[in-house]
Amino acid sequence: MPAVGDRYDGPVSRSDPTDQRDPAERNPWRRVSRRVAYENPWIQVLHDDVIRPDGSAGIYGVVHFRHIAIGVVPLDEAGDRVLLVGQYRYALERYSWEIPEGGGDFGEEPVLAAQRELAEETGYAAEAWRELCRADLSNSVADELAILFVATGLVAGEAHPEGTEQLQTRWVAFDEAMAMIRGGEITDAMSILALQVLALERAAP
Amino acid sequence: MPAVGDRYDGPVSRSDPTDQRDPAERNPWRRVSRRVAYENPWIQVLHDDVIRPDGSAGIYGVVHFRHIAIGVVPLDEAGDRVLLVGQYRYALERYSWEIPEGGGDFGEEPVLAAQRELAEETGYAAEAWRELCRADLSNSVADELAILFVATGLVAGEAHPEGTEQLQTRWVAFDEAMAMIRGGEITDAMSILALQVLALERAAP
Repeated sequence: MPAVGDRYDGPVSRSDPTDQRDPAERNPWRRVSRRVAYENPWIQVLHDDVIRPDGSAGIYGVVHFRHIAIGVVPLDEAGDRVLLVGQYRYALERYSWEIPEGGGDFGEEPVLAAQRELAEETGYAAEAWRELCRADLSNSVADELAILFVATGLVAGEAHPEGTEQLQTRWVAFDEAMAMIRGGEITDAMSILALQVLALERAAP
Repeated sequence: MPAVGDRYDGPVSRSDPTDQRDPAERNPWRRVSRRVAYENPWIQVLHDDVIRPDGSAGIYGVVHFRHIAIGVVPLDEAGDRVLLVGQYRYALERYSWEIPEGGGDFGEEPVLAAQRELAEETGYAAEAWRELCRADLSNSVADELAILFVATGLVAGEAHPEGTEQLQTRWVAFDEAMAMIRGGEITDAMSILALQVLALERAAP
């Protein structure tokens, strides 16, 4: 892994003359150089000099995420209530109620990361897991991928939050969670995405 | 605005002894120092030394976004079709079909930014605008806020994309757009969030 200030030693451009895709969908950017501008255990910021689609010189700052964002909707036996987690979000500088979330390693089965994060944050294990949705959270500058699950057949246990986490948990009715989205009380994109997938399934004839 | 490498001159900690909120919802982090680690016209990366909620020393890298992320679902007169925009996403290194999106300035009315971005990317103006949803897109490290709209009463005009944009547009049936989400062809979080809100409204009795 290159250090901060190093020239990035990866491919300088992904443009490929043998590319068989629709020309309109090929990469219209050309990367001239790349360096690592900042990194920590969670993100790496890459500063690129580029030729833009219109042929002019420019720059692009890419935020590379070192983990996959994993989210889980824990749903009770009757399917009537979901378990939310409350925590102070340092980046937002305010408190946020969300579904349990955490980071998964690349190369790790996403569902295993989901099981670990649910257990750490809430103590719950679950008998059944189903993937709901994948999403690119912030694709104008970042490559962060979210993978979202629903967990049912919950079995209570003891939570083991990390040192960065000071959490509250709270069961709410599914319809109340949806009202919290409409009312602006739940604003976390991963939580809204996952709950809306379930709400659409429930609304289907 | 501080330069890269400068010590950040903002508040060192937001903890406030007169804070009247539920103690469980107060900021459990203490910021020891902050510096600007990277910046460009779109993002600023702040590196903080912190005391974590468990009392141990740590760091936090915050990606501050200099614009609000604005998204628009352009819906045709019958409410049957939506206009999608295709573009190569540099951060993802692949092509992506999405709703029209762009950046709004803080202090600018979000709907005015939405009107400008829709016109730039597609040429369309719209008679009616309605906000669908606000979301924090990536709150583990970033403060990026998305504001999503639906636009109806569309009037065609001429597109004026920026030099960073090489776009295709395509009308698809609303139900086809929802199938593209389920099938993993639409993966952009803002697009999924906005289309889900509309789909839930359409499914309501």
